[in-house]
Amino acid sequence: MRIDPAFLATSHAVGELPLCLVRLHNDARFPWLVLLPRAEGAREIEDLSEPARARLMGEIIRAGAAVRAIGAALGRPVEKLNVGALGNIVAQLHVHVVGRRAEDPAWPGPVWGFGRAEPYGADDLARAMAAAQAALAT
Amino acid sequence: MRIDPAFLATSHAVGELPLCLVRLHNDARFPWLVLLPRAEGAREIEDLSEPARARLMGEIIRAGAAVRAIGAALGRPVEKLNVGALGNIVAQLHVHVVGRRAEDPAWPGPVWGFGRAEPYGADDLARAMAAAQAALAT
Repeated sequence: MRIDPAFLATSHAVGELPLCLVRLHNDARFPWLVLLPRAEGAREIEDLSEPARARLMGEIIRAGAAVRAIGAALGRPVEKLNVGALGNIVAQLHVHVVGRRAEDPAWPGPVWGFGRAEPYGADDLARAMAAAQAALAT
Repeated sequence: MRIDPAFLATSHAVGELPLCLVRLHNDARFPWLVLLPRAEGAREIEDLSEPARARLMGEIIRAGAAVRAIGAALGRPVEKLNVGALGNIVAQLHVHVVGRRAEDPAWPGPVWGFGRAEPYGADDLARAMAAAQAALAT
């Protein structure tokens, strides 16, 4: 599947679910996964078939569990999930699943467009990836 | 169903779908519907039963069509849908479905927390409500 270069530049491949590629957004401020449905040319959720929409919903739930696992692994347990499908900047259909805390820098506002991403250090990146992969495998 | 007073203060009842109450967010800057699933105490999508999650996905699609209808009725056709479940400020589970245009004031950033809502005038409110209700009825 074609992946918009914007995702390759800002995130790491975590794994594959039946519908979506899962990527870790490279911003240590928030545990943040991006789901990329395998649906060439799709820009809106409505562009997916009905079975794919149902799969997407299930994978959003699984990504939420993985985001919680990332937060726990980094010692910052998630208090609220934020789920968003925007696509105003990168057209390829994608869904953000982000773990929020009342003490995170953007709280209670949205993460999108907030300040600058802070790339993970090597240790935290490894911890986040391992936690996400373990959660997605269950 | 209990509705958080924050929704009553900032939106108008549009109608009811099998799972969700549908409300028009009173902000003329963006065609914007809010879905409130009838699920007492739910804060996250994962708090819904599996059948309710599937219904929510279907109602997000229907709300998207209604948001497009509002934009068309007001002479500002929607170019991109933004769907978000945040809940950082109001805990009761709700999903925003917002119609965006490259010329809207917040583009390409998110609408949440952007500036101040501009309440609808009476004529545009009536037009928006009628368009949304007609679209949801189909």
